[in-house]
Amino acid sequence: MLVLRRVSFLLSSPSPRAPLAKPLLLLRPPQTLAPTARQLVAMAASVPSAGGAGTMSRDAFRAAVTNTLERRLFFVPSFKIYGGVAGLYDYGPPGCAVKANVLAFWRQHFVLEEGMLEVDCPCVTPEVVLKASGHVDKFTDLMVKDEKTGNCYRADHLLKDFCKDKLEKDHTLSPEMAEEYNRVLAILDDLTAEQLGAKIREYKIVAPDTKNSLSDPYPFNLMFQTSIGPSGLSPGYMRPETAQGIFVNFKDLYYYNGNKLPFAAAQIGQAFRNEISPRQGLLRVREFTLAEIEHFVDPEDKSHPKFGDVSDLEFWMFPREDQMAGRSATRLKLGNSISEGTVNNETLGYFIGRVYLFLTQLGIDKDRLRFRQHLPNEMAHYAADCWDAEIECSYGWIECVGIADRSAYDLRAHSDKSGEKLEAHEKFAEPREVEKLVITPSKKELGLAFKGNQKLVVESLEAMTETEALDMKAALESRGEVEFKVCTLGKNVTIKKNMVSINIEKKKEHQRKFTPSVIEPSFGIGRIIYCLFEHCFYQRPGKTEDEQLNVFRFPPLVAPIKCTVFPLVKLEKFEAVAKKISKALTAAGISHIIDMTGNTIGKRYARTDEIGVPLAITVDHTTSVTVRDRDSKDQIRVDVDEVASVVKEVTDGQSTWADIMWRYPAHTASAADEDGAQP
Amino acid sequence: MLVLRRVSFLLSSPSPRAPLAKPLLLLRPPQTLAPTARQLVAMAASVPSAGGAGTMSRDAFRAAVTNTLERRLFFVPSFKIYGGVAGLYDYGPPGCAVKANVLAFWRQHFVLEEGMLEVDCPCVTPEVVLKASGHVDKFTDLMVKDEKTGNCYRADHLLKDFCKDKLEKDHTLSPEMAEEYNRVLAILDDLTAEQLGAKIREYKIVAPDTKNSLSDPYPFNLMFQTSIGPSGLSPGYMRPETAQGIFVNFKDLYYYNGNKLPFAAAQIGQAFRNEISPRQGLLRVREFTLAEIEHFVDPEDKSHPKFGDVSDLEFWMFPREDQMAGRSATRLKLGNSISEGTVNNETLGYFIGRVYLFLTQLGIDKDRLRFRQHLPNEMAHYAADCWDAEIECSYGWIECVGIADRSAYDLRAHSDKSGEKLEAHEKFAEPREVEKLVITPSKKELGLAFKGNQKLVVESLEAMTETEALDMKAALESRGEVEFKVCTLGKNVTIKKNMVSINIEKKKEHQRKFTPSVIEPSFGIGRIIYCLFEHCFYQRPGKTEDEQLNVFRFPPLVAPIKCTVFPLVKLEKFEAVAKKISKALTAAGISHIIDMTGNTIGKRYARTDEIGVPLAITVDHTTSVTVRDRDSKDQIRVDVDEVASVVKEVTDGQSTWADIMWRYPAHTASAADEDGAQP
Repeated sequence: MLVLRRVSFLLSSPSPRAPLAKPLLLLRPPQTLAPTARQLVAMAASVPSAGGAGTMSRDAFRAAVTNTLERRLFFVPSFKIYGGVAGLYDYGPPGCAVKANVLAFWRQHFVLEEGMLEVDCPCVTPEVVLKASGHVDKFTDLMVKDEKTGNCYRADHLLKDFCKDKLEKDHTLSPEMAEEYNRVLAILDDLTAEQLGAKIREYKIVAPDTKNSLSDPYPFNLMFQTSIGPSGLSPGYMRPETAQGIFVNFKDLYYYNGNKLPFAAAQIGQAFRNEISPRQGLLRVREFTLAEIEHFVDPEDKSHPKFGDVSDLEFWMFPREDQMAGRSATRLKLGNSISEGTVNNETLGYFIGRVYLFLTQLGIDKDRLRFRQHLPNEMAHYAADCWDAEIECSYGWIECVGIADRSAYDLRAHSDKSGEKLEAHEKFAEPREVEKLVITPSKKELGLAFKGNQKLVVESLEAMTETEALDMKAALESRGEVEFKVCTLGKNVTIKKNMVSINIEKKKEHQRKFTPSVIEPSFGIGRIIYCLFEHCFYQRPGKTEDEQLNVFRFPPLVAPIKCTVFPLVKLEKFEAVAKKISKALTAAGISHIIDMTGNTIGKRYARTDEIGVPLAITVDHTTSVTVRDRDSKDQIRVDVDEVASVVKEVTDGQSTWADIMWRYPAHTASAADEDGAQP
Repeated sequence: MLVLRRVSFLLSSPSPRAPLAKPLLLLRPPQTLAPTARQLVAMAASVPSAGGAGTMSRDAFRAAVTNTLERRLFFVPSFKIYGGVAGLYDYGPPGCAVKANVLAFWRQHFVLEEGMLEVDCPCVTPEVVLKASGHVDKFTDLMVKDEKTGNCYRADHLLKDFCKDKLEKDHTLSPEMAEEYNRVLAILDDLTAEQLGAKIREYKIVAPDTKNSLSDPYPFNLMFQTSIGPSGLSPGYMRPETAQGIFVNFKDLYYYNGNKLPFAAAQIGQAFRNEISPRQGLLRVREFTLAEIEHFVDPEDKSHPKFGDVSDLEFWMFPREDQMAGRSATRLKLGNSISEGTVNNETLGYFIGRVYLFLTQLGIDKDRLRFRQHLPNEMAHYAADCWDAEIECSYGWIECVGIADRSAYDLRAHSDKSGEKLEAHEKFAEPREVEKLVITPSKKELGLAFKGNQKLVVESLEAMTETEALDMKAALESRGEVEFKVCTLGKNVTIKKNMVSINIEKKKEHQRKFTPSVIEPSFGIGRIIYCLFEHCFYQRPGKTEDEQLNVFRFPPLVAPIKCTVFPLVKLEKFEAVAKKISKALTAAGISHIIDMTGNTIGKRYARTDEIGVPLAITVDHTTSVTVRDRDSKDQIRVDVDEVASVVKEVTDGQSTWADIMWRYPAHTASAADEDGAQP
């Protein structure tokens, strides 16, 4: 069932910026609960096994990963000595280094290589901005309260848990009820407060902790609210996404880019969501790092000059039609998905390709990565197309990057609210002749007829659409007068022929003004990192039969520490060499640790394998040393003076271990070298 | 006067973690307002001119810098299209790149080179943590309200503005009153709410906007408050500093470090302070990036193994004694300041040296940087010593880095509040024999005597200090019984000889347990960057006489863009070369821009000088190109295939421009090459 469950953070459920599925829901009366497209997909799609877990169950695999992660301080629950806070986590030293590496690569891969304009805006955001974006009104989850204790629960979680529990544990369940529960699970995300409430009453669901009865579901806004300044009169929120900071700066950024389109702005920063009941460890948290790109384009030209660089890429895609027909994801060539119209436009396709390269270069398994297109009811009405990069982990398929063509929605929303024009212009090489509707109200006649209301009538006349104006023109010409509704007055007035002239005139235009479309790739950095942890984790047998050694096969790019230095035994001459090598590594900018403890080399290898260090240097001689590869456990001998540059070559990605292995003599490991973690 | 005005952000005024000056204030009755040490310094110190401003006034210099910074989008007020929010700023593309470079260098210089443990904790913090740290109760500024409109003001700001205004503009001022106002300015930071209120009433200070009368001053907590989770019952705050996230993780980090001291943890992240009325642009803001280090040491051994690396450094220091004697800052050799006892200990001194190297390598002028020791009344009672790295800019001397030996205060505070032991231990090579006081209450006798109160009496007995216990022992031996106050019972009880045995016993101890001291260098990244902007800014004449061209002389390390590529004229062959060079620069990881506009080369140079690009490549040939240095305007000719590696050599800091200039033929600039910004 997880296949289609939107574990959404980029667009929450329901998204404020994408008031999704509203039209569809209105067409679907609650009592029928008819199977939807998404339900069909959910039924058809198989749940693949968590690769890398081997014969372990998903739960055992997850337990092994998270145990290693917490024990080695990749991350820990925040404020643990005070009992912690649900949904808040600290990255410890290795986790923090992985995160810094992922962000540095993101900056290199997107900002630097694409010449994006990076900005850095505050988290504290005044209400007006999030009112314009829709978050104040719509960024909510449906909540129910225990009627006696006041404990809060997410309404959809309770209903989901109830249905799953019935399906898994109630062996007396009739086939009809099983079908009903499956159907509810499939449409869970689309239920209104009323529908959810009706189901909770129908199934007699009570508070899980107390068995008390529950309130009706009502929307709870997921933003952390605060107050800006001392007066208490300026409400503010901790931003739920970084995107708004870019939109409100559009005008300056467009100017910075020489008033030219397309261009992209990017931002990395903290975002905040006050989840009702955080679940799934690092996947649904209350504070997280987002990296977002807003690529502004001319809506009439969404081609991309560098699309050719990615068009030959082939990877798993899951187009809307395949989902609705109950088929599985398929491997598609990106170029074909554009030429066949599966992906809406080249720019969107280009970013899908770049995201694929980004994730796989980080170490995400390309066979547990797919791009899933949003179904019609998942997308906002204004969105042109939307694809999620989903990564499979022990929790199922997790949305880690959202790539959406949001058309002109966001810029228009801020333009309307602020009164500041957020638009671009295209200068024509030659002026163009265009036909233009010109509405000229006669202020004198309107003033005589409507006195104090004249202004509102004038504004309404000028605001007519082309069709309305042409209809009025025809009516005035045939009948001499017409009834006209002035919304701002709340009534109809009679417009006579002498009160307004409506004409189509030919005009020369030198430029075209328009609101740019925006294509938005939005990265949940914490989710990507968690999936990376799972994809890189494996176990291998230790010295004793039942001992399992944990390894993270991080690529050098993301490895928290690139290299360790071990003096084989506690001898001053070895320690001197270790320090010399350490100095050379520092000068080369390579993060490393020296382990001077007297532990066996095998134990020291096991400890660094467990935090994913790619290379280990063992100082067993004063002129040359052993370099050992984490995954193959192969060892070579390298001169002391050369070793830092060899390590740099591999960890910078200029060479692979396989490349350099043949250049240096092999070192045959003695049995003692790899004796597992036991002392 | 600015010389001593603490423009403090690291420790606010008054700091929650440093309830500073309280003891001194109690000794100083409000009516006397006697001159303090700090007032003496304020009177003695001269206000140096803002170097780099040449003959310009400070205000004109600042206007020129900030105008350039805002126009070129280094930073802009946040949410500008909605009128902005005081104290919130966005970094635009070049500012964002400078910030990323400063942070990357910080990570290299401190975390990587010193092997620190970096962590990354959330901004949202539950109340209990900030209750323990003192922020909930003491992190306040004194505020007054306009009694009619409710507008809020910082009480000390109003008093300061009033006194300065009188001193500057009131030509009828008597010498006595001038002395009085000067005295008030000098002791401003130390005034209590009552004292401030008395002065405001005495001077009849009213609300600046309305002339209405003002409320009495009262403390306003500077933390942004919010609520964690949906219940509304878990108050939380946006962290006012990152340090607490490290302290609460001490136990795990100590374990991660192999249960060994010393070690340092570090964190970079956002911090938040809801200032009453933000001033001074980027220097006092409501959200900012901090980079903090907590170096944990054995309080009995604060030596540092690498102190020798910095002991020969010589720079401006301003010891406490010199400030109090009215002397100026002096150049001191760091090694001497330790051997002479000016700086409390080697570890503190080591960090002062490392901070000096960090700031000057960024581009801070070493003659506008000084380390000022805190005066006794600025320091918390528990602090061993504290030095601020102050940088001079057009606002005066600004505290940018605080380096404090905070003893065991923070760990103890969290230990007490959480009940979790936050301590280290030192294993002895040989067990040591120690004399230990052993108090053994007889539960049986005490139970018979005090029944239900037995437990409280036992606890009070066990909690006695050594002196109390020895006094009791003596009394029991001489008199057989003694009156004993049990605080938890709120009364005295009679303790008899058979109820407790008190002895001094010899014991063998295998280890020593203690709470580590912490030495905390805390960096205000935004302040450092703003000062860097001022120190790097200069103007030089353009083509026309009155034209001034703006230049930021950023070192390559921090320059937002390392290099520009200009095809001399719009020719396909030049553009092809430019693209080839761009590709090579990207591959080398060098941030650059290509400017294909038809502007003159001079205009293009001027535009990139203004954002501090160190090197410009002009493509004026297909096999070799011109490379131009920003500051000297010298030009050399370099082969197309070689140019990326030459640029990398300079921008990576392996060579200076002077180094490479002699290796390549000079290119004589034609008059047209440097024609200023005019087209």
